[in-house]
Amino acid sequence: MSIEKFKIGIIGATGYAGVELLRLLLAHPFVEVAAVASQSFTGKPISDVYPSLFNICDKICVSNEEVIAKSDVVFAAVPSGISQELAAQCIQNKCIFIDLGADFRLDSEEEYTEWYGGKYLFPGLHEAAVYGLPELFRHEMTGKVLVGNPGCYPTASALALAPALKAGLIETQGIVIDAKSGVSGAGRSLTQTTHFIDVNENFNAYKAGVHRHTPEIEQSLSKVAGRGVRITFVPHLLPVSRGILATCYAKATLACSEKTLRNAYENCYGDEPFIRLLPSDKEACIRNVTLSNYCDISIHFVERSQTVVITSAIDNMIKGAAGQAIQNMNILLSMPETMGLQMVPNAF
Amino acid sequence: MSIEKFKIGIIGATGYAGVELLRLLLAHPFVEVAAVASQSFTGKPISDVYPSLFNICDKICVSNEEVIAKSDVVFAAVPSGISQELAAQCIQNKCIFIDLGADFRLDSEEEYTEWYGGKYLFPGLHEAAVYGLPELFRHEMTGKVLVGNPGCYPTASALALAPALKAGLIETQGIVIDAKSGVSGAGRSLTQTTHFIDVNENFNAYKAGVHRHTPEIEQSLSKVAGRGVRITFVPHLLPVSRGILATCYAKATLACSEKTLRNAYENCYGDEPFIRLLPSDKEACIRNVTLSNYCDISIHFVERSQTVVITSAIDNMIKGAAGQAIQNMNILLSMPETMGLQMVPNAF
Amino acid sequence: MSIEKFKIGIIGATGYAGVELLRLLLAHPFVEVAAVASQSFTGKPISDVYPSLFNICDKICVSNEEVIAKSDVVFAAVPSGISQELAAQCIQNKCIFIDLGADFRLDSEEEYTEWYGGKYLFPGLHEAAVYGLPELFRHEMTGKVLVGNPGCYPTASALALAPALKAGLIETQGIVIDAKSGVSGAGRSLTQTTHFIDVNENFNAYKAGVHRHTPEIEQSLSKVAGRGVRITFVPHLLPVSRGILATCYAKATLACSEKTLRNAYENCYGDEPFIRLLPSDKEACIRNVTLSNYCDISIHFVERSQTVVITSAIDNMIKGAAGQAIQNMNILLSMPETMGLQMVPNAF
Amino acid sequence: MSIEKFKIGIIGATGYAGVELLRLLLAHPFVEVAAVASQSFTGKPISDVYPSLFNICDKICVSNEEVIAKSDVVFAAVPSGISQELAAQCIQNKCIFIDLGADFRLDSEEEYTEWYGGKYLFPGLHEAAVYGLPELFRHEMTGKVLVGNPGCYPTASALALAPALKAGLIETQGIVIDAKSGVSGAGRSLTQTTHFIDVNENFNAYKAGVHRHTPEIEQSLSKVAGRGVRITFVPHLLPVSRGILATCYAKATLACSEKTLRNAYENCYGDEPFIRLLPSDKEACIRNVTLSNYCDISIHFVERSQTVVITSAIDNMIKGAAGQAIQNMNILLSMPETMGLQMVPNAF
Repeated sequence: MSIEKFKIGIIGATGYAGVELLRLLLAHPFVEVAAVASQSFTGKPISDVYPSLFNICDKICVSNEEVIAKSDVVFAAVPSGISQELAAQCIQNKCIFIDLGADFRLDSEEEYTEWYGGKYLFPGLHEAAVYGLPELFRHEMTGKVLVGNPGCYPTASALALAPALKAGLIETQGIVIDAKSGVSGAGRSLTQTTHFIDVNENFNAYKAGVHRHTPEIEQSLSKVAGRGVRITFVPHLLPVSRGILATCYAKATLACSEKTLRNAYENCYGDEPFIRLLPSDKEACIRNVTLSNYCDISIHFVERSQTVVITSAIDNMIKGAAGQAIQNMNILLSMPETMGLQMVPNAF
Repeated sequence: MSIEKFKIGIIGATGYAGVELLRLLLAHPFVEVAAVASQSFTGKPISDVYPSLFNICDKICVSNEEVIAKSDVVFAAVPSGISQELAAQCIQNKCIFIDLGADFRLDSEEEYTEWYGGKYLFPGLHEAAVYGLPELFRHEMTGKVLVGNPGCYPTASALALAPALKAGLIETQGIVIDAKSGVSGAGRSLTQTTHFIDVNENFNAYKAGVHRHTPEIEQSLSKVAGRGVRITFVPHLLPVSRGILATCYAKATLACSEKTLRNAYENCYGDEPFIRLLPSDKEACIRNVTLSNYCDISIHFVERSQTVVITSAIDNMIKGAAGQAIQNMNILLSMPETMGLQMVPNAF
Repeated sequence: MSIEKFKIGIIGATGYAGVELLRLLLAHPFVEVAAVASQSFTGKPISDVYPSLFNICDKICVSNEEVIAKSDVVFAAVPSGISQELAAQCIQNKCIFIDLGADFRLDSEEEYTEWYGGKYLFPGLHEAAVYGLPELFRHEMTGKVLVGNPGCYPTASALALAPALKAGLIETQGIVIDAKSGVSGAGRSLTQTTHFIDVNENFNAYKAGVHRHTPEIEQSLSKVAGRGVRITFVPHLLPVSRGILATCYAKATLACSEKTLRNAYENCYGDEPFIRLLPSDKEACIRNVTLSNYCDISIHFVERSQTVVITSAIDNMIKGAAGQAIQNMNILLSMPETMGLQMVPNAF
Repeated sequence: MSIEKFKIGIIGATGYAGVELLRLLLAHPFVEVAAVASQSFTGKPISDVYPSLFNICDKICVSNEEVIAKSDVVFAAVPSGISQELAAQCIQNKCIFIDLGADFRLDSEEEYTEWYGGKYLFPGLHEAAVYGLPELFRHEMTGKVLVGNPGCYPTASALALAPALKAGLIETQGIVIDAKSGVSGAGRSLTQTTHFIDVNENFNAYKAGVHRHTPEIEQSLSKVAGRGVRITFVPHLLPVSRGILATCYAKATLACSEKTLRNAYENCYGDEPFIRLLPSDKEACIRNVTLSNYCDISIHFVERSQTVVITSAIDNMIKGAAGQAIQNMNILLSMPETMGLQMVPNAF
């Protein structure tokens, strides 16, 4: 084909989100991966780090600078605090920048400082950035060149609760989000908590009530609710490689019924290509969304306790990271939003 | 030794709870397993069903009647509805009866009928029965010969929340219990939902808000609170063989603080041999209680949302079934409560 | 596009191989799934059986006849013995037939009868059929319309050993194939051996030396060796959903050395799109081929025991079933062999 | 009781074998754990490293010297090369020394140097040491005070093949041992290969033909065969926490038949408390021996290839490490060999 493909760069390509971006972009029809960078493996082929890529993509990891120089769009999947400088360089180079870390997610520098311990180095960049959760904030994305890609838990949580909040069917206070994530969410670096022996046949909560995704979830929910929402968020570590299930609890308002609740979700998500609102005989399962960009949502109205229970399932690495980042890229490049993301999830 | 050992019978010995009872009782110093019954495998050695027992216990499965005739204490681990008749026969035979099913757990026949669909056939038996959750109701067990052994989820849930409720540190309404169980809780019979391919790398909620353990949990919590408690209970299926983690959420009352909360738990459980109240740097994990009779409990007071989060971990087959049944047997037989139950959990 | 797509039918679409075919064919650019049949779920949408397909493919399962009537190519993934009749109908309907079962794999009716207990009902069909292992027998496939798609173990085993046998670098007698398969190989029907509790944290051999794939492996190896090869084949059940690793042992001949061995594999497989001959610092892992059509092969020459050890890894459901079937379809339809099969395996 | 208990010390107590020793010894009726040492965690309670032990054993890790000074028996579970010095100190202190590492396993210093890269520092100690595989070499253990505890693979392999070799029913050359181990065999230290994401849903061979356990297996087999045995040994990593299955292949001699083979195993192992020779309808599974000191063995005579296939299953941490070490301690202390080791394996 003679179509000119967009040139893509990935910084932090040897982390889990980075290599997942690479895998998905290799199958995207209108882009070409121009270069990949990795701090730990510069000079080595990425297929040495991930032999699944052997003979498919044996690109050598180069420097961040080389990636930025060669790309129309740069994705960064690096620890928080590092992206601001990268974003500045990209914007200067007329390069779209999509940050999979936390640096451009929060509107409030104060909250960023409280939860992540850093400062906003380039206030202009933060004003220019958009929070890339298209199903809720697509209208804010037009003309943007800098995206803060949502966290995995915040994606599952906000998508689960937004329609009920918008429709005024649940109380804004007392919301509980009990989330469970596969191990890839903890990253590739070696830690005791990700040793096979520690994870296998185990399960536990961690950072109960104090996880850094809390303010990001509250920010999204507050925006859709039109007033301040405060949540209790408790993540857990699941002995699986991929997937997040968020079980979300909220007190029903008087307007809430089985029917008004389902209507609210159908109104919000009826046309969304990546959200599957499940009928009442199907329950959201991480298995059914694994390796896809889907978010499956199940709705429960528990009458005896007047409580709404919404479960949402995503692949933490796709809709919760790399897939959503590509969805955002498609929007910014005015391509169909589903381009390169129409994977049929495997049944097992 | 010339000590006369108690003769024990197990009805439903080839189910998971039954075989776990057998395994634990084989190691109990003051009892002897006299006979085991299994409807599906009568006439076959139990080691044909569970080859782990080969050469250790090759007892032939006999009829319920033979078990009752030979035993001082009978445990039944059978589907709900079947135990009432068995209990009547045992009591008539002067045999202690410990029911691992649901027939003798609920005080209210109305609730039993609503949730389990049966009737109380022998009202006198139900009055004579005691709910065997020693840490909360040990004082009611003196002189009893008929025990309704608690469900697995109700054990984890009630132990998690009772001290805070007793001390008035949490609201009695709006309680959320998000529980996760290993697959053994679903039983040995073949179902699509327990096929390896369906469970592996998967996770989901089920029976959200409508699980039959709901009234049992509410009954225990209402008793300790001194007034009606209504909960929202959502169980999930974990891809592990054993273990339950219950994450319990409740609104803090004004009296609640980090300190009053911990004090309440220490007062309740300070001397309990099977409850480990974890310090704040340790989080309840199913791994750490697996194959033991422990219930590990972690306490969290989330200040920003004024919410109490308690996590409790048990082995669903031990503290949640067979181990607790033996603990109850020990109490009824006036043996030390920990007899035969002092297994050190394996670290991995 | 105005390209006329080939119409495809799947019989046995609700088995694991069937649904995997469906998933892959949905992404194939030049085919269209016309109809799917399932004996157990006729009249139901396939997405009721596999909710991963919800909103993507909600086709209703129809009868075998309807499938055959609507299709240019029919795949059958049904128990052995059933395909012969289906093949006859397809051939009569001028429909290409690709059988994922065992009915058209063995040249010798005698062996078929010995191992599978059936007869060859239409001898002409068996003569017309070709064994669809392209990397070894592509030259025999020209002009064929009936394919016996290889078994999963035979694919991994024959690909592993063929080059060494062809080159005369290993003895034809005394070959040992120790193979390990994920649970999907055992099928979707409910059996005790596929209950999560039986598989999880377990591992064992089964049908040692008597598995039905033995004659199929020997047939392939004998053909490439040019004389009778007899093997000892022992399969094992791995606690994973997908994948086969075959560890193959053979006595080295005098001509064998590290170098001659590697050369033999490079000569055979150098241009094969789906075989990755791994360098000596990489070891064949099921993880690296999962969800792809690759067969990864590692070569070891153990000098001290003069033994050749070849490990091969495939996804049992793709290169071992559905993927290879599509590869065969591509060949028969004169499409590029890799069409619809260029999935990049996920790194985790 | 007024029985004086033996005082036990554990060096390397925070490794997997060390903590498993501790767990088992805490339940041994005639010993008392006097002190535990850990290089990495000196000064910390062992229950900080393994919270499963919280409130059960909160002993502080002390120095090796303190352990030796306080103990009648010292177990060392440390990397190879370190034990020789420890052994010397123990023997000087009249302390029994049981080494779970490799320093005292090989008779030949030459082989030790070739495979482990060290020297025999105290030749007298090596002469005084005995190889602690009681089922094969119990008669050599009388009066010994220094034990080289066998490796996990060598235990499973030697027990599997010894009876057939002794009875002359298999050839001594061309033996293949294809072994599969759970992840605990790889140790607690953090490595990429034991990260959950790398192990989960994966399987592969490693160190094919060059694993250091090779000479140890050959040493045992040569001793029982009465002449040099050379094997091909290939280990694999299983995605489970515990357990080894060894599938062993050997060419049958003319004397071999189904019957002579089974007789040979019955003669050797008929009275062994920790070996279960399985009937032909049961297959050795790691599940059935997990958390016990059993070695389950299945015997197969494959007539069509005249090959003997023996499968053996052990818990790599118990019969393959800590349990066997305690069995050896019992022998040296003239206690019943099964003391503290009569755990009934759990069925799931």
